[in-house]
Amino acid sequence: MDYDLYVVIDEDYRPGLDLAQLTHAVAENGASVIQLRCKHSCDQRFYDLALSLRQVTLCYRLPLIINDRLDIALAVDADGVHLGQEDLPASVARRILGEGKIIGVSAATPEEARLAAEAGASYLGVGAIFATGTKSDAGDPIGPEAISAIRPVCSLPLVGIGGIALANAASVIRAGGDGVAIVSAIMGSDDPASATAALLRTVKAAKSELLVR
Amino acid sequence: MDYDLYVVIDEDYRPGLDLAQLTHAVAENGASVIQLRCKHSCDQRFYDLALSLRQVTLCYRLPLIINDRLDIALAVDADGVHLGQEDLPASVARRILGEGKIIGVSAATPEEARLAAEAGASYLGVGAIFATGTKSDAGDPIGPEAISAIRPVCSLPLVGIGGIALANAASVIRAGGDGVAIVSAIMGSDDPASATAALLRTVKAAKSELLVR
Repeated sequence: MDYDLYVVIDEDYRPGLDLAQLTHAVAENGASVIQLRCKHSCDQRFYDLALSLRQVTLCYRLPLIINDRLDIALAVDADGVHLGQEDLPASVARRILGEGKIIGVSAATPEEARLAAEAGASYLGVGAIFATGTKSDAGDPIGPEAISAIRPVCSLPLVGIGGIALANAASVIRAGGDGVAIVSAIMGSDDPASATAALLRTVKAAKSELLVR
Repeated sequence: MDYDLYVVIDEDYRPGLDLAQLTHAVAENGASVIQLRCKHSCDQRFYDLALSLRQVTLCYRLPLIINDRLDIALAVDADGVHLGQEDLPASVARRILGEGKIIGVSAATPEEARLAAEAGASYLGVGAIFATGTKSDAGDPIGPEAISAIRPVCSLPLVGIGGIALANAASVIRAGGDGVAIVSAIMGSDDPASATAALLRTVKAAKSELLVR
């Protein structure tokens, strides 16, 4: 499983945007994982959106992760679900979904990381690394050093999230991140395809640097 | 399955109320079904509440229905789920839950009733029958005559919901309802136990009257 460039498609980010088309563009330009986040729509709409993104991710053989909602993930046979600290417990999600599905858990500290790993998480979303405008409950930024703190005590893939863009993505990888999760730097871009490609190059370059050190 | 007195435990109704204790009181006094509705809490809290109500409903051998959320229903092994017109499609819920679980669907018209039955609904919640303050998106009241309109075209159990209280519960049964769903007339009562018992007597009396006609 490749977490290099984990693209979050947030329905609230730009109302009216064609999210299936956006997903095509980011998938074609190197996204490793697609997450659908849909905090304020009715479930019928969430389900319809998830179905339409599922068509795209199947074409590109990319994993589709549903934010928060295990039922929507089951309904569209997504590859997994991402759970925050206030969502259903990961252990319960693992029991329902079985071993074959991806369960991501948000963690900001080594203790949260340890508990998530025990509960059966597949990867951790660590953040908010930098200040972000796309998640109202994200809390104060914890910096790439939060990843450095979790890295020694946790063998799960760590994906940095929150305010990550071209200028700071490499610092997340250097801190021990396996990848970066991106909302604004792609959804807020006038050219999401190029933004995706540029972010992927940056992540890959930072990983290469670490290897040759 | 007995739908006489379907009690909705709405977490928003009276913040701070001990909902497990309330569920005990209504279960002991003749509730036929318990539904947990939790529109504004985090999922962790919804799950914890559902677990605590589950303990009570198992004691009383009452069905526990989870409003809107199939994942919470699965997580606590509830008896079923109730879905509105803007929630996950009932057909999808049926596919995920299988035949053994109860799926309730909100319906206000004969056409919605027909579609819900086709999709695999177990019962219909018909409303809002009367004006209600507990559901902001309930729309204009449709009156007991909505039940009379659906009854001839639908063999599913019909449960009236919305503004039903002691004074008007019998009219719902006389219109062809199999039961009444209650929020305010129990949760807003100073004595939910007595309110439950009185409502049950009213429903049973109205059903007896119909039988002897």
